Amino acid sequence: MVFKHDHLRRERTGLPEAILCEGKHPHSLSEIMQELTQKPDTPFLFTRMSDDAYEALNEGHKELLDYHPLSATAILHGCLPERQGRVAVITAGTSDLPVAHEAARTLQYMGVNARLMADVGVAGIWRLMERLDELRDAEVIIAVAGMDAALPTVAAGLLPQPIIGVPTSVGYGVANRGDTALNAMLSSCAQGIVVTNIDNGFGAACAALRILRRQESTHA
Amino acid sequence: MVFKHDHLRRERTGLPEAILCEGKHPHSLSEIMQELTQKPDTPFLFTRMSDDAYEALNEGHKELLDYHPLSATAILHGCLPERQGRVAVITAGTSDLPVAHEAARTLQYMGVNARLMADVGVAGIWRLMERLDELRDAEVIIAVAGMDAALPTVAAGLLPQPIIGVPTSVGYGVANRGDTALNAMLSSCAQGIVVTNIDNGFGAACAALRILRRQESTHA
Amino acid sequence: MVFKHDHLRRERTGLPEAILCEGKHPHSLSEIMQELTQKPDTPFLFTRMSDDAYEALNEGHKELLDYHPLSATAILHGCLPERQGRVAVITAGTSDLPVAHEAARTLQYMGVNARLMADVGVAGIWRLMERLDELRDAEVIIAVAGMDAALPTVAAGLLPQPIIGVPTSVGYGVANRGDTALNAMLSSCAQGIVVTNIDNGFGAACAALRILRRQESTHA
Amino acid sequence: MVFKHDHLRRERTGLPEAILCEGKHPHSLSEIMQELTQKPDTPFLFTRMSDDAYEALNEGHKELLDYHPLSATAILHGCLPERQGRVAVITAGTSDLPVAHEAARTLQYMGVNARLMADVGVAGIWRLMERLDELRDAEVIIAVAGMDAALPTVAAGLLPQPIIGVPTSVGYGVANRGDTALNAMLSSCAQGIVVTNIDNGFGAACAALRILRRQESTHA
Amino acid sequence: MVFKHDHLRRERTGLPEAILCEGKHPHSLSEIMQELTQKPDTPFLFTRMSDDAYEALNEGHKELLDYHPLSATAILHGCLPERQGRVAVITAGTSDLPVAHEAARTLQYMGVNARLMADVGVAGIWRLMERLDELRDAEVIIAVAGMDAALPTVAAGLLPQPIIGVPTSVGYGVANRGDTALNAMLSSCAQGIVVTNIDNGFGAACAALRILRRQESTHA
Amino acid sequence: MVFKHDHLRRERTGLPEAILCEGKHPHSLSEIMQELTQKPDTPFLFTRMSDDAYEALNEGHKELLDYHPLSATAILHGCLPERQGRVAVITAGTSDLPVAHEAARTLQYMGVNARLMADVGVAGIWRLMERLDELRDAEVIIAVAGMDAALPTVAAGLLPQPIIGVPTSVGYGVANRGDTALNAMLSSCAQGIVVTNIDNGFGAACAALRILRRQESTHA
Amino acid sequence: MVFKHDHLRRERTGLPEAILCEGKHPHSLSEIMQELTQKPDTPFLFTRMSDDAYEALNEGHKELLDYHPLSATAILHGCLPERQGRVAVITAGTSDLPVAHEAARTLQYMGVNARLMADVGVAGIWRLMERLDELRDAEVIIAVAGMDAALPTVAAGLLPQPIIGVPTSVGYGVANRGDTALNAMLSSCAQGIVVTNIDNGFGAACAALRILRRQESTHA
Amino acid sequence: MVFKHDHLRRERTGLPEAILCEGKHPHSLSEIMQELTQKPDTPFLFTRMSDDAYEALNEGHKELLDYHPLSATAILHGCLPERQGRVAVITAGTSDLPVAHEAARTLQYMGVNARLMADVGVAGIWRLMERLDELRDAEVIIAVAGMDAALPTVAAGLLPQPIIGVPTSVGYGVANRGDTALNAMLSSCAQGIVVTNIDNGFGAACAALRILRRQESTHA
Repeated sequence: MVFKHDHLRRERTGLPEAILCEGKHPHSLSEIMQELTQKPDTPFLFTRMSDDAYEALNEGHKELLDYHPLSATAILHGCLPERQGRVAVITAGTSDLPVAHEAARTLQYMGVNARLMADVGVAGIWRLMERLDELRDAEVIIAVAGMDAALPTVAAGLLPQPIIGVPTSVGYGVANRGDTALNAMLSSCAQGIVVTNIDNGFGAACAALRILRRQESTHA
Repeated sequence: MVFKHDHLRRERTGLPEAILCEGKHPHSLSEIMQELTQKPDTPFLFTRMSDDAYEALNEGHKELLDYHPLSATAILHGCLPERQGRVAVITAGTSDLPVAHEAARTLQYMGVNARLMADVGVAGIWRLMERLDELRDAEVIIAVAGMDAALPTVAAGLLPQPIIGVPTSVGYGVANRGDTALNAMLSSCAQGIVVTNIDNGFGAACAALRILRRQESTHA
Repeated sequence: MVFKHDHLRRERTGLPEAILCEGKHPHSLSEIMQELTQKPDTPFLFTRMSDDAYEALNEGHKELLDYHPLSATAILHGCLPERQGRVAVITAGTSDLPVAHEAARTLQYMGVNARLMADVGVAGIWRLMERLDELRDAEVIIAVAGMDAALPTVAAGLLPQPIIGVPTSVGYGVANRGDTALNAMLSSCAQGIVVTNIDNGFGAACAALRILRRQESTHA
Repeated sequence: MVFKHDHLRRERTGLPEAILCEGKHPHSLSEIMQELTQKPDTPFLFTRMSDDAYEALNEGHKELLDYHPLSATAILHGCLPERQGRVAVITAGTSDLPVAHEAARTLQYMGVNARLMADVGVAGIWRLMERLDELRDAEVIIAVAGMDAALPTVAAGLLPQPIIGVPTSVGYGVANRGDTALNAMLSSCAQGIVVTNIDNGFGAACAALRILRRQESTHA
Repeated sequence: MVFKHDHLRRERTGLPEAILCEGKHPHSLSEIMQELTQKPDTPFLFTRMSDDAYEALNEGHKELLDYHPLSATAILHGCLPERQGRVAVITAGTSDLPVAHEAARTLQYMGVNARLMADVGVAGIWRLMERLDELRDAEVIIAVAGMDAALPTVAAGLLPQPIIGVPTSVGYGVANRGDTALNAMLSSCAQGIVVTNIDNGFGAACAALRILRRQESTHA
Repeated sequence: MVFKHDHLRRERTGLPEAILCEGKHPHSLSEIMQELTQKPDTPFLFTRMSDDAYEALNEGHKELLDYHPLSATAILHGCLPERQGRVAVITAGTSDLPVAHEAARTLQYMGVNARLMADVGVAGIWRLMERLDELRDAEVIIAVAGMDAALPTVAAGLLPQPIIGVPTSVGYGVANRGDTALNAMLSSCAQGIVVTNIDNGFGAACAALRILRRQESTHA
Repeated sequence: MVFKHDHLRRERTGLPEAILCEGKHPHSLSEIMQELTQKPDTPFLFTRMSDDAYEALNEGHKELLDYHPLSATAILHGCLPERQGRVAVITAGTSDLPVAHEAARTLQYMGVNARLMADVGVAGIWRLMERLDELRDAEVIIAVAGMDAALPTVAAGLLPQPIIGVPTSVGYGVANRGDTALNAMLSSCAQGIVVTNIDNGFGAACAALRILRRQESTHA
Repeated sequence: MVFKHDHLRRERTGLPEAILCEGKHPHSLSEIMQELTQKPDTPFLFTRMSDDAYEALNEGHKELLDYHPLSATAILHGCLPERQGRVAVITAGTSDLPVAHEAARTLQYMGVNARLMADVGVAGIWRLMERLDELRDAEVIIAVAGMDAALPTVAAGLLPQPIIGVPTSVGYGVANRGDTALNAMLSSCAQGIVVTNIDNGFGAACAALRILRRQESTHA
């Protein structure tokens, strides 16, 4: 079985190709890698690549990858050309960092400047308040939070930009591996928050790119 | 079948008797009312008494009740003697008022002074900030909120008192009739929030009384 | 209790005030209406106002409202000034129309031009294919779909714009009042779809406004 | 305890015997193997046999098995005689391959010709479109997909054959280990899709055989 | 908004058009009816049309419909030409009859002969045993059952045909409006049962038609 | 902390003491064992003792235990005196054996004669039919089944004795670790089935003893 | 369609025939009634017959029924002959009475003496303690409780008889229409509690009869 | 990224800083430890620190920690000054000890005297009864229980103090990793129980401190 990386998708949607590693058999992943390494001019992004999945690759492939363990992402053949746009990635707590970094790495790979501000969760509301001016400068805000996920609600009441909530699977008990954070974001009484799947920093970055790019195409 | 209002419980726990009307057959409710009206010296509280349940009572019983439709509570034979203690009941939005009033009416019935502050939900954080000084004066805070229920998280990061969260069944879709609010409160990263069942303003008031009364018994 | 419509929120976020009617006691709704009618220069939007809720208002209030039963929305004191931006609202089937119209009415109220294209669900893929050129013209796409909610997945593979998925509670059995549509959208393998709560056409419109407005503020 | 492979079932339903390995104690599995190897004229199929379960068998037994790790199936004593019928097994993505191969291996074991077409998921709709002519040639289609599982919906709108959807446990977050894919398939607005349990490629192959065989018996 | 009944779907899949009434606004339903009555040569099927939905139609439309209250179906402009094929619809109990009749009426509308056998649930196993010979004559079996839904499991162990399980929302408590019946059918240890959504007699009939028709096209 | 095995419970309910090992810290388990070995005249039963938990005990303790890996039970200081009563433990499949043996071992420990009949699941109904005469001889029947758990439904329609259903966590996908089996048993349309927690063979044996013993006490 | 009341079931299991009215179409119920009234020598029991279902019957049928609204049961053609055996039905609160009466009426219909003791819930533990001597006299105990359903746990720690727990759908919020009561009973740490479906007083009575009757058959 | 321990929170709420270790990447935990060890005058508490997390720290850090494996807590730089107040921590069973010890260790760290009474679960009601006098002496009661979690219900009917229920994830099957215990506590019919997240002994201790401290501030 030969893996087809999907040229047409990129042409039609402008979004670069990415390979979700989780759930793929090591043999399938190895075949994909074998094929992609033969296209040195095309950058690729791998997401949810665990340490084990990375270690199972052969040495030659590992050397070609820019692997980042905390975000479980790897970049092959460098990043895409830089483009305009400022995205802020904010997190409620330290445990949300892997997901926030997945978003930031995806943006970096797509050529977008991302600024990560950690530990601004609203259980200490002053932490967010101190950063409001910085946040007003961003064109899109990605708010990463687990547990009760109150961060995007408070942020959306204070800031006018597009806000993409990313619930995380942080927490225990009724945090329910992110379900509570997801549902809290979706039922937020703040207006106009949009949300991705649990832990989906990659998807939030793609959505941010859709927003930034729309602007380019319209105003270019 | 004769209804037994439970004298022993009051003696042992200090909590007054209350009758949950919801789920009781109209005939059962009528029998209970018949029996309790024969004890004019004992105050009783009825909770979750819908308009329909109230209207189904006979006229004589209706006249004896102090019925409050918004909170669906009724008081028979007046309130208990006033006692010390200041409780603040805060709500995120207008839709949380029925539950907040259930808490306030229960406190009133138990002789406790309750102050209700509505519409301080954190999607407009300044609304809570403006009331912080008032809130610091309360001995116990009951925070009533639905949907994402972020109010107790922010409040608990700013205030040192006991905070009892009451999730409400307000909202639609993934608000899930209060499940999301409940789980968000329980998985709050703010420290030391305790929670009651969905829409249980009565239970929050009882818990507040346990806290206030402990103080009396210990320090009297 | 006096209802506070929240001037500060509008100032800070640029989003106009809206009143969610569902879950509010008729008495509360009447009080709110009484207060808002005294501000004839300020437009207001009411959402999820059922026929019953509308009929329970007094005649004078009803006359002031522009009520739209299919979308269950009402506008008081006219719409906001027109602004630039083209939003397409697409639906999978006829049953999704109430939610699609909630989005379109909210956009209309906020001064944004919205184009509604119904019945382009992918069980008949040619229906979407025929409208692709029209869709390429929109700056933001709101995709409204229930049941298996496959519409945004296919659309996002063909179109480069921001795509906001709105799951609907249409269907029976395991459609689970919209949960399946919501989860299918969130776990779409198409890149960069963002999602709102079930049936939340209003929220999708607000998110679209955040995207359109960002452009104005940045490029004006 | 002696394992009874069920001759009567085969006689009555025409379906061959299969042993589900998952959940069986290694000792039970070893006893079963011991017994079946003494019937060299009867082919047997083992499903969900993990690498660990295979490795725990004794060497003599391992040698007798035709083990296929990706599909976690093993065949003992060869396949059943070939029969007529063309089944297509299609998958949305690479991660669905183990389940697709379980279906294909079961068909192969039952003597049916199966054609596997991978990576035709509808987030890139052109991939399915290119294969429509091939698909029209099949008598039964098994559509294997996880996450939002939109593949059978689009296929069922384009093709007239029996379509058996097999949801997979691929994905994370609200993919919910296959529940979302299952529910999306069941609530598809395309007509006449039938569905098996999550990851049940074996069951889909059996259902295909029931369909193919009905034809034989009726028309022979 | 003009309703588009989907000619293309019929051409491509061979399945006739059907209108799901549940969840459609009365106004939408009336518009659809207005349009379809202008095509007197095309038969249409309406499903899940409640007594209330039927009564809300205007008199002229009602007269044109062949309405069947127990199955909540209506047929407009007669049935499709008869075709070969024998389908048996069996039910576990009397409460499953509405769903069984939805399947039977859909088959009748599509020109297929359907035989309904009620009350053969396996809590009285002899009831099924007495009908086995009749059942062996059918080409496809649709097994309708709620609660524990054990009927298709027992039937599939005794009969070689394609068996389509239709779980019903019959029962209370943990019957969970059909979820238990659905999950029991999906996790049946009998081989090769396929399943539709809860209460989806229409879908089962369409699947049966896909099976019957495949035979025609292949062998004609 | 000293473990208190509960003499009073045995005196009041007649049920012997048992220690649930799962979920106990190895240190706690070791302390308990230390204490119980000092009471050589009192038999004790340990349930859900995994191989790991057994291996973690010190050698002296291990020697004193009669450990049975398949059922994960251990008996200390022998069994209780034999008592009258015949209990049949039946299972649907081989994978249900660990739970069935937990029931049988508990009965053996309590001095009750238990007969285990495996592999009588109703997907091959003739297997149960062949054993009916044997089953009629039992005073209590414990029916152990996973997946769709149809066994107790069919058995309860054929047999007059008390039938205790024990759902097992066997299966995958929507088998949901036993939830489906549990709910199917609870919503069985057969009359008078009672049920225990998932995998709770121990509880079923205790319930059987309550039934057998009642007889002794009443009729002795 | 003619309703078959199932003679064979009674012969084989000794349990009398009962008709579950809920979920049956009024027309089906009327047909059943028509048929059963022609067998004046056979007693029948109807369960979950709502006031509306009863009122929809024709007058002649209503007169023949002994209808009991609180338990929603009706008896046709009198009760079965009295048999030995003493069953106690206990309830936690007044709201559990409908279910408790369904159990008691079913027992009465089957000729068994049932004693109902209400309001012995363990939030006031002394209420249960006062009745222990009475309870020791019963041969089987049916414990009916909703909400946290702690009653059977405490009772089973004090009493040696068979205890059948019946969870009720009493309560609100996380009481979840009886799911919490059901799960609490099933995961009770008291030994040997068995459980029925939520609100299934009828099933508990049937199980009690299986227990009582076993005794007769064995010892007669 | 530098970890910010939150001085402001302590100042505003009076609650000391704690670090939740679970879910934090080992690298993040190591950075935090590095920073905190440089503040030798400030005590810190670590919760949910598994043996693995502890072992992954460097030796110097390990030596500085007072690590307690059963409760998975560690204290750095000693405890806070002793304060007045008596808290009782009671558990239903031995398996609840880790959570109970987390509460007790947190209280010890905050300078509060905590008394732990284990194994007073109400399946043996006399065990609680024997300790009632001791319990009456406590100012706050923390009741730790899993499975059916009936302990706080019975305790709250006998004792007048504030009662904080902590559900535990003990048990299997429908114990659902603590969900059943949580829901049973929340829907208790005893008055005024408040609840924390599953296994959240730390949160219960913080809530107890809020209650004790309120008293100091009011009465000092």
